Amino acid sequence: MTKRIGLFGFGVVGQGYFQIAKKQKEKWIPDTIVVKDQKKRRPSDIKFSYHAQDVFDKNPDYILELISNTEEAYEYVTEALKRGITVISANKKLLSAHLPELISLQKVFGGKLLYEAAVAAGIPVITTLETHFEEDTIVSIEGILNGSSNYILSRIFNNGLSFDEALRMAQQKGFAESDPSFDISGSDVASKLNILILHAFGKFVGEEQIATFGIQNLGEDEIALAKSLGLKIKLIAKAEKDYRGISAYIIPTLVEESNLFYGVENEYNAVKINSEHLQDQFYQGKGAGSLPTGAAVYGDLVKARNGFSYNYSKVNFDKPLDEKLLNLGIKVLVKCRSEEIIENNIFSTEFIERVDGFYFAVGKVKPKSLNKLNELKEVSLIALPDYLSAEDILHELKEIQKSGELI
Amino acid sequence: MTKRIGLFGFGVVGQGYFQIAKKQKEKWIPDTIVVKDQKKRRPSDIKFSYHAQDVFDKNPDYILELISNTEEAYEYVTEALKRGITVISANKKLLSAHLPELISLQKVFGGKLLYEAAVAAGIPVITTLETHFEEDTIVSIEGILNGSSNYILSRIFNNGLSFDEALRMAQQKGFAESDPSFDISGSDVASKLNILILHAFGKFVGEEQIATFGIQNLGEDEIALAKSLGLKIKLIAKAEKDYRGISAYIIPTLVEESNLFYGVENEYNAVKINSEHLQDQFYQGKGAGSLPTGAAVYGDLVKARNGFSYNYSKVNFDKPLDEKLLNLGIKVLVKCRSEEIIENNIFSTEFIERVDGFYFAVGKVKPKSLNKLNELKEVSLIALPDYLSAEDILHELKEIQKSGELI
Ligand SMILES: NC(=O)c1ccc[n+]([C@@H]2O[C@H](COP(=O)([O-])OP(=O)(O)OC[C@H]3O[C@@H](n4cnc5c(N)ncnc54)[C@H](OP(=O)(O)O)[C@@H]3O)[C@@H](O)[C@H]2O)c1
Ligand SMILES: NC(=O)c1ccc[n+]([C@@H]2O[C@H](COP(=O)([O-])OP(=O)(O)OC[C@H]3O[C@@H](n4cnc5c(N)ncnc54)[C@H](OP(=O)(O)O)[C@@H]3O)[C@@H](O)[C@H]2O)c1
Repeated sequence: MTKRIGLFGFGVVGQGYFQIAKKQKEKWIPDTIVVKDQKKRRPSDIKFSYHAQDVFDKNPDYILELISNTEEAYEYVTEALKRGITVISANKKLLSAHLPELISLQKVFGGKLLYEAAVAAGIPVITTLETHFEEDTIVSIEGILNGSSNYILSRIFNNGLSFDEALRMAQQKGFAESDPSFDISGSDVASKLNILILHAFGKFVGEEQIATFGIQNLGEDEIALAKSLGLKIKLIAKAEKDYRGISAYIIPTLVEESNLFYGVENEYNAVKINSEHLQDQFYQGKGAGSLPTGAAVYGDLVKARNGFSYNYSKVNFDKPLDEKLLNLGIKVLVKCRSEEIIENNIFSTEFIERVDGFYFAVGKVKPKSLNKLNELKEVSLIALPDYLSAEDILHELKEIQKSGELI
Repeated sequence: MTKRIGLFGFGVVGQGYFQIAKKQKEKWIPDTIVVKDQKKRRPSDIKFSYHAQDVFDKNPDYILELISNTEEAYEYVTEALKRGITVISANKKLLSAHLPELISLQKVFGGKLLYEAAVAAGIPVITTLETHFEEDTIVSIEGILNGSSNYILSRIFNNGLSFDEALRMAQQKGFAESDPSFDISGSDVASKLNILILHAFGKFVGEEQIATFGIQNLGEDEIALAKSLGLKIKLIAKAEKDYRGISAYIIPTLVEESNLFYGVENEYNAVKINSEHLQDQFYQGKGAGSLPTGAAVYGDLVKARNGFSYNYSKVNFDKPLDEKLLNLGIKVLVKCRSEEIIENNIFSTEFIERVDGFYFAVGKVKPKSLNKLNELKEVSLIALPDYLSAEDILHELKEIQKSGELI
């Protein structure tokens, strides 16, 4: 039986979906495609509409929401769910902001919402959390969740490019937007981690609560330090749960060769799940791009057709969905221009040292401070693995300074 | 609604399942547990039976088949499927031998059969092939699928143990059976690859057809060679499909650091899938052990309860399920005591060289020859990556001989 499909958005993801759907036995070609910009040149053999209502007028079985805007996506998706229509979305910003409401709408009106492409694109992490881990207790979930940032870090560590050169290259390759701030500030990752936390721990924490620091201020000094220690820096997102509650943070992190994330390069994403029974699992796949994301959307459609939906099995619907995150300190190396910033934000400080006009310190930072520091220019933080002592870091910084590599 | 569960087998996997089921909200404690050996000491607080009929007499909703024997498993599983009962099995030997019939029985009588634990234990590879890749075209599937062999190789490469010491250690740790031949000869892997081929390519090839060579004859010389080249040896299973058909082989393989399998150590398993749309995916997880396998069985039960079953979506049921594999040559380094073996089995030979009583050669081997050679003592083969030339290998062998490391 042919299904009627309405599609919103015909950009990177929408075109990827379209290209894939055309080749299948079950073509699932949308009967309506709504886009926004009336002046844009489009393929002449496809009919486009500029009115959302055109999608709803056709009484579609499925709606694909693949647009770049969040507010309008919210309107389309809630409207569809209120009509009991099943929706596939790739929109992490929308989902991260409105999941609790979107879950209720599914319950009340019976339409389903699937969104595998929204987190780690091609990696089936949400489906796997919902099925394979349904009755297992998750201890932690950790990931490299932004392809652009990871691509930039790969160019810096493997090709010796500067941050700015690497960013330009990511933009040329189409991995980073012309305004890349969502990608490199960690904001995109915070949306994704927020969604994963709901599926892993059954709680909605909201991305504003997640301690987030991006790679935007990463300087030559931290890069030289990592290299001289034989380590790499990766933008790691991590959420864990223990008897006290959930903690979650996103921060550039020093990783050693034995860490599975060490080998995750370029536009790849990866997810590590630690659970009580299945213990360690690691998944790696393409984190962005037209075909992998389009395939994830098509895959959701196939799953929905087969009757699959998210159970939100970790959620206890008799209790509030919202949860306050733990306020635990994270051990970091901080670099900035002012000693005050360190004094006001870093505690358990192990050293403060002035090197070439910068202050360097090792100490701990609380989630709230991290979010504030992420807004400042010229402040750089990286998380340190436990085995690295402050003395090791200080020693290495001085060595780098001596050898003149530090700017 | 409580479901009635019948359990066959209370060994490593059965006990893992039981331990997990006891802790859940939905306990799913089997009402009948059938085991075999009447003399074995058992926990006194659990009731056991020694008669398969006891399971069927209770009219169970689900049967878990977790026994070590294949013939009796065949009887229980076919009996259950004929009664339309849903079965969870971890028995790769059974499945690999009888999948076509077991698929028909599901179709005819409506009972379902799930078996995630049978391949790569905790990694949800079959479910992922059936859902996420349902409408994607798979190009190749590759894996480290035997925890014991991989554990042995890790001890050899990371701790400098000899093969025999490493095997003893694997047995002490419970990763290898007291008769480890299934594990180290590649036979266990062949069953698993045979099952994966059905889910990835929709064809049943039969494990006898799969070119298989184990690690049982791996000698100091090949190990020294790999080490001096900065490589590791991993027992890699690979199946790929192109316009000509499917090829499949299992063989110890030289892998370089940039290969994701390089970092898969100890009892871990890993699977790499390359597909047209999702491109590269890589999954790693525990490949053996009581909790990971028990959790995979429990997970299957949850999936079955949720209405999930394998679609065998790659299978074209209008065509024969059986398929002949391609007979392509594989580039190998062979070591043996007789020049005749090389002449009779290796073609496109690039060199034959006598070193310390052994003949070494680089050339190609056909699947049928590989299977014959796997039966012989003192014949060792490793697959070579394309970039390594015969000259490089020969040069390195001579260097090793000079430095006296070669026995
Ligand atoms: N790109 C990736 O690799 C990737 C990966 C995972 C998730 N995502 C998510 O997928 C979604 C789409 O991303 P994208 O990369 O495909 O974006 P994109 O290339 O910028 O394309 C966005 C599309 O949405 C359309 N659009 C914007 N506002 C609209 C509205 N109000 N009504 C109808 N159409 C509207 C645009 O129309 P015009 O054609 O008229 O401009 C365009 O076709 C986003 O939520 C993004 O976060 C993207
Ligand atoms: N171990 C792993 O990590 C692993 C991983 C994946 C898949 N598997 C598969 O899972 C299955 C079970 O493996 P295992 O490691 O749990 O084996 P195991 O530890 O040797 O236990 C086998 C169990 O099967 C019982 N049994 C044997 N024949 C029986 C029969 N005819 N009727 C009833 N019970 C019978 C045995 O009974 P007694 O107690 O009376 O001896 C024992 O309880 C095998 O197919 C294996 O290939 C194992």
